[in-house]
Order: sequence, then C-alpha cells, then structure tokens
Amino acid sequence: MTERVPIYNRVALIGLGLIAGSMAHAMRRGGLAGEIVGTARSAETRDVAREIGLVDRVTDTAAEAVEGADLVVLAVPVGAMEAVAEEIAPHLAPGATVTDVGSVKRAVIDAVAPHIPEGVHFVPAHPLAGTEHSGPRSGFASLFDNRWCLIVPPEGADRAAVDRVEALWQAMGSHTDEMDPDHHDLVLAVTSHAPHLIAYTMVGVADHLRRVTDSEVIKYSAAGFRDFTRIAASDPTMWRDVFLTNKEATLDILGRFTEELFVLQRAIRMGDGDMLHEYFTRTRAIRRSIIEAGQDTDAPDFGRSGGPR
Amino acid sequence: MTERVPIYNRVALIGLGLIAGSMAHAMRRGGLAGEIVGTARSAETRDVAREIGLVDRVTDTAAEAVEGADLVVLAVPVGAMEAVAEEIAPHLAPGATVTDVGSVKRAVIDAVAPHIPEGVHFVPAHPLAGTEHSGPRSGFASLFDNRWCLIVPPEGADRAAVDRVEALWQAMGSHTDEMDPDHHDLVLAVTSHAPHLIAYTMVGVADHLRRVTDSEVIKYSAAGFRDFTRIAASDPTMWRDVFLTNKEATLDILGRFTEELFVLQRAIRMGDGDMLHEYFTRTRAIRRSIIEAGQDTDAPDFGRSGGPR
Repeated sequence: MTERVPIYNRVALIGLGLIAGSMAHAMRRGGLAGEIVGTARSAETRDVAREIGLVDRVTDTAAEAVEGADLVVLAVPVGAMEAVAEEIAPHLAPGATVTDVGSVKRAVIDAVAPHIPEGVHFVPAHPLAGTEHSGPRSGFASLFDNRWCLIVPPEGADRAAVDRVEALWQAMGSHTDEMDPDHHDLVLAVTSHAPHLIAYTMVGVADHLRRVTDSEVIKYSAAGFRDFTRIAASDPTMWRDVFLTNKEATLDILGRFTEELFVLQRAIRMGDGDMLHEYFTRTRAIRRSIIEAGQDTDAPDFGRSGGPR
Repeated sequence: MTERVPIYNRVALIGLGLIAGSMAHAMRRGGLAGEIVGTARSAETRDVAREIGLVDRVTDTAAEAVEGADLVVLAVPVGAMEAVAEEIAPHLAPGATVTDVGSVKRAVIDAVAPHIPEGVHFVPAHPLAGTEHSGPRSGFASLFDNRWCLIVPPEGADRAAVDRVEALWQAMGSHTDEMDPDHHDLVLAVTSHAPHLIAYTMVGVADHLRRVTDSEVIKYSAAGFRDFTRIAASDPTMWRDVFLTNKEATLDILGRFTEELFVLQRAIRMGDGDMLHEYFTRTRAIRRSIIEAGQDTDAPDFGRSGGPR
C-alpha cells in the first residue's frame, strides 16, 4: 500500500452535529485531512467534542477555527449560515475553499456567497444522509457510505476547487453528482422536505386526537405509525430552517400531495377498489427500484424485526 | 422442563401469507399446536407451502382444511373473509373456535359472524405486526415477539374460548389487549391506515412529477422518502380492502390530517419559525415514548446505516 496523502491539510468544521461529526470520523477513517479543527456555538457541544476527541482541536470561535484551514465546512442549520460566513470571512486563508452541508442550496448560496472574499472558493454541497439523532455524539464513519452527495457549484466556480470537494466526498464513501441550486431544492422538496413535513403532521394529528389516547398511539405504533415518528424526531432547528428557506418548492410539492390525497380519499369514499389496487401496485414497484439502486435494505421492516434475508 | 402441551390440537390456517406463515413458524417454535393444516386460494402458494414445509399438511380447499380443527384462523384479505366463512361453515367441528387476523374489525365481524354455526366460537383478533413483504416465504417466527395483538370479542363471547385465543397469542410472543371493534378501527386508522394511505400518496406524487425524474427520486431517496416507499410497498390487495372496509374512520383521520397540514403549510408561508420549532420539538418527544415502550429501536435510521448504539 502506498502512503495515503491527505486531500486537505487542515479542515475546519463549523458546527459539530451529526454531519460534521460523521465527516470527522470518515476523514479519519480515510486519512483525508492533515488536521481536523472544530468548533460549535454551544460550550456544552465543544466540551463533549473535547471529551470524546471528536476532532484534533476544538476552538472556542469560528474565527479561530478557520485560521490556516484549506477547507472550511459550514455544518450549522441553514438559518445560521449567513452569520457564520460573516464572522469567518476576514479570517479565511487565501486559496481556501468554503463548503457547506445545508439541505437547501439556493438560500445558502444567497446568504453565504456575498461574504466570500476574493481568492477564496465557495463550493456548496449536500450529503443525502442522516439519522434522526443529533449532536456531537451522534456521528459515525459509515454514514456517507454508498449515499449520494450533491455538489452545487455556483456559476464560474473554480474547477479544481470543485473537483477537490468531490474527491473528499468520494473518499468519505459517497457517490457525487453536480446539480444546479434550483433543481436541487426541487428534488429535495420531493425526496426529503415534503416527506418530513408530512411525517411531522401525522405525528401531530395522533398527539391531538383525544378519542385515541397517547398510550394507545404509542403501544400500537408498530402497525406503520412508528416509521413516521422516526422521521418526525429529526432535529427541530435544522428542519425549521429547511422549511423557511425552501418555502416555494416545499409548498409546491405539498400542494400536489394534497391534490393527490384528495383523489385517493375520493376513491375510498366511492369504493373504487380497482383504482386503489392499481395505485398501490405502482408504488410497490418504486420500492423495488430503490432497493435495486442500493439505496435501502430489502430486509423486512428495515431489518429491525429480525426476520429472514 | 415439563413437556409442553399444545394449546390447540389442530390449527387450520386459511391463507398462507406473511401473518399465517409467521403464525406457523411461531406455533412450531413454541410447540403450540398438535398439527398445523393450511390452505390458500392460489395453487402456486400451496405448492410453495408444500415445498418449504410451511405447515404439516396443505389441503386444496378451505373446507378440507377446517375438518377436525379446534382453531380456524382466517388469514385472508378482509374483503375475502365472508366468502371463506360461508365456505367453511358447514365443515366446522362443534366446539371449534374461529378467529381472524384482519386489520379491520367491525367489517370482519359483520361479514363473518352471521355464518358461524351454533356451538362454534368466534374470537376476532388483530396482531399489530407485519413487514412490507408478503407471500408464503415471507413469514418468520419472531414477527409477533413483543408486539401487541388486539382481541376483539363480540358481545356474549365465550370467556374460555377468548382466553384460549389470547393464550395462543401470548405464547407466540405477543402482548394482548381487548378492545371493542369500533374503537379498534379508530385506533388503527390513526396508527396504521392513515399513515399507509399518506405514504402511498407521497410515493405516487413523486412518481408523477415530471420535473423530477424517477431516477432522481430513487437515487436521492435516502433523505427521508425511502421510509415512505417501504410502507407503500405493502400488499396492494390487503390494503385496498382495509381502506374500503374502514372507510369512515380512515376518512375522518385523513380529514384531520389535511387540516393540520394546512396549518403547518400556512406557518411555512408566513415564516412562523417559532410555531414550527415548537411543533417539531413535541413530535420528537413522541418518538422517545415509543422507544421507551419497547415498540421501536433507538438505533439510528432503524439500524440500517450501521451506526453506533
């Protein structure tokens, strides 16, 4: 084996939650960074990061963290990106690259790009991976394995800087694709943002319904509902910001969803069994495609019930 | 160890899908039935059941299967229950118990009870367990472990017959509760039927949306959408029948869901971040309760991404 050469000499992680923490683990697994520096707004998070040795060095401010870094990763909620960009801007090293991991891209570009100094590259990215857990203890090295990371380079971005960010994501286990910001935000509204809002809504309905007690909802959740509760357990701050910053695309998809739901409700009301059966047969085929594409397990019930296969 | 005494001498399984197959495995694991006889409408299913030795004896008709059985389990889609009840009625042994595993209880009772002969007991039941897989190969012994089975005895049901069905479910690993049929159907509309229709709808929307390609939906599904596709991969015939036979309760919950969705959509449109944050914090707590109640795993992403814990 040849000795591994790091892709970046010093990586600064701003924010130390699930994604940044998993990046730290994945970069260490692959020897991808010479040094990993990290910081977080909350003193408690910084203390935990120090205690568990999440990164090589924890700094108290973002300004300190980015000093001398050739890659700076903004891993904070989308709504906090602009303030961080403003804070770090005067401290960025010439030739450095700033990237982010936000779930929305147009809003992040609008908020961050104006603060990026001349001679510093900005390469927005979005790893499509996560769990319902959050915080500095929640990360793990394999989170990005076989998942997609979407790279969203602004017009005129430096090709070498873009390629290097892509190389990092690939070395952390991901497949990468490039996409423009508006299309990214629409695709994510379909595959992520609308499903999350729908899950939050269904869990909220169950919580409100006084004719069915909370304990009934909880005890009998294995019949389907518990899958919604996992999604609806995702980080509240992150998701508040996603909906507020990808407003148009999310509302567009939710509008289509409601129309479609009304069509199915009507089929139930009218007793149109053929329509329902045909619809459910089609959706089953989509699941099959996702499994064939390696994007989910075929183990029954995600493998949690311990069944065969 | 004392020798285990079977709870029933001969159990007849009508239908050999996920639930009946898992019952066969669980009854064998526990030595709960002297003999297990099974049948299915499709010759292919019967052939597979014979090939894999799913039950002790496969018969070609339901009428043959129930002969001499002291427990008959109707494990067919809800819409097929009445025809099966009519077919087996003349062949039921005096003193036998008929039970079912349908996801809807009022409609099953209305369809089946009139056909049950004098001297035969009818004890409807509903195990709250399943996976997205179906067919004679999909069952496994641990499916019911630590799950709930709801027993819905009709008015005036024979106490000993009810207790024996409960004892069987407990011996197959379940907790049991008794409930009246209308409340059962409402609780299940919340915890299962509405979530399934919502998942089917969201997957259908993604399939229709031509500005986002199918391959994008599939590749990028790990961001949340793939959980919906698992639910929306459930058996189409079973679910068509559930919606058609639990129409009122399902439409009631879907109506509430739509109202609630509009409230959240409005909060997004108006930029009411505090409302969203407070809402998402509450739904996260419900997830916690489900995990504490032992009804789901706390492993991130249901454990499928191989993370810690």
